[in-house]
Amino acid sequence: MTARTPFPRSIGLTQVVEWNNGDVRRGEDYLAGEEPLEMRAGRQRIGLTLRTPGNDCELVAGFLFTEGIISRREEILSLEGEDAPRSRGAAGNVVRVKLKADVRLRAARRNFSAGSACGACGKESIAQLRRRGIHAPDRDSQFDPEMLCGLPEKLRETQAIFGRTGGLHAAALVTAGGEIVVLREDIGRHNAVDKVIGWALIQGKLPLARHALMVSGRGGFEIVQKALSAGIPLLASISAPSTLAVQLARELNLTLIGFLRGRRFIVYSGEQRIAMAAAM
Amino acid sequence: MTARTPFPRSIGLTQVVEWNNGDVRRGEDYLAGEEPLEMRAGRQRIGLTLRTPGNDCELVAGFLFTEGIISRREEILSLEGEDAPRSRGAAGNVVRVKLKADVRLRAARRNFSAGSACGACGKESIAQLRRRGIHAPDRDSQFDPEMLCGLPEKLRETQAIFGRTGGLHAAALVTAGGEIVVLREDIGRHNAVDKVIGWALIQGKLPLARHALMVSGRGGFEIVQKALSAGIPLLASISAPSTLAVQLARELNLTLIGFLRGRRFIVYSGEQRIAMAAAM
Repeated sequence: MTARTPFPRSIGLTQVVEWNNGDVRRGEDYLAGEEPLEMRAGRQRIGLTLRTPGNDCELVAGFLFTEGIISRREEILSLEGEDAPRSRGAAGNVVRVKLKADVRLRAARRNFSAGSACGACGKESIAQLRRRGIHAPDRDSQFDPEMLCGLPEKLRETQAIFGRTGGLHAAALVTAGGEIVVLREDIGRHNAVDKVIGWALIQGKLPLARHALMVSGRGGFEIVQKALSAGIPLLASISAPSTLAVQLARELNLTLIGFLRGRRFIVYSGEQRIAMAAAM
Repeated sequence: MTARTPFPRSIGLTQVVEWNNGDVRRGEDYLAGEEPLEMRAGRQRIGLTLRTPGNDCELVAGFLFTEGIISRREEILSLEGEDAPRSRGAAGNVVRVKLKADVRLRAARRNFSAGSACGACGKESIAQLRRRGIHAPDRDSQFDPEMLCGLPEKLRETQAIFGRTGGLHAAALVTAGGEIVVLREDIGRHNAVDKVIGWALIQGKLPLARHALMVSGRGGFEIVQKALSAGIPLLASISAPSTLAVQLARELNLTLIGFLRGRRFIVYSGEQRIAMAAAM
């Protein structure tokens, strides 16, 4: 179910010049699509992002959820965009969302805070997430190291657009058994994650206990926050996390894996969910 | 002049568990610093970003400039943050900026637009930049392919933090002769670029004719826009650009290089600035 035909505007073909050790050649090359997307609720703009076209409604649903504007699928009354099942003619780079009347609409703010109260450690950013009701994901999930080691290759094989353009991030939702449930690509790491979580929200699958989120880029604070908001117990990345990402993961007991490459990875937090040899 | 001691909070040391082909080992690992930074003008918050601490005043100066809030150095009356030359005690994650009275303060918006007028092609986003007075960089700069091929290694050698954490983006300003003038690292690609351009703004070096900007990540629309706003004629990246980045680069005649790896690169735009063999 994961191999997909790319959305038409997710790839562009263009004329290029290649310089290769002194030889110059004209040719064609694929590019990753990037276009602005506006999110509208009535007359109000609630968000604006540069994204790779495709799965726009999932992106908006995921964004509304992971940024804390909504907390349940039922708060979205309708979503209209180009990839909506029953689009009623919304323009290509706009998704129109109708929300329940009691949803407090605010221009989307990023979910972290600075200020003198925060000091040097990001404590206030983490406290904010707790106030939003974000808590530790399920404690009982177990993940096999061998399964984790297989994920980067599966991710790469399943990426429809990256193979042609070399320019996209991917996020994949994976079962504890290692099956990719859904994979989304985007020029923005955050957008790829929002598309995956938006898909799960629309499908009624949240919270995502016993699932892992695998991302192609780094695992920064905002990616950890998005995983936690969806109740995902394990976040794995082929690259490095940041200080604040590790701090948040430990505080809310997310299992955070980095440098997942070949037959090696680093566990930064939540090691009890990894079925490691008793020898340690 | 480029080798620097990292700013203390730009790196963190933490306990980790390493899984390596079935062997489990406890150890320590360096992490790239990530903390929120608030930008304040008087009582107004004008920006909030997650960044790697260090060179915060440059980051804010570059952000104000590349986002079009200011257009000249003289519009900044003062900048106070932890790395300011004469800090007057501003807290660690806040930079306070005093702007000339006639600078129209607005909460920083991202410089692109969607909406029905824009259609599928990003034309409106590019038109917005033209209205800001951003125009084509100098036409006369010439860059040698051999010099370009040497940049990725120079960048890597000069990165103070990446070598230890594997987790940071870099942006470097380079002369046409291949000398790195300034290099900045950050967990965010945009921030690394803003730090470099902010440095140049503070030093009174804008516009940056006859310079190249080398970035470690992808060259998306916003990176191209930032390079153009500083008058930089060539942007090079080890990775792929996007459709909208290429479109903007061509429209405003920026030389855009991608996949700069080993002795090969791709020219997407502005090839007349590359001193290539006449054979083509």
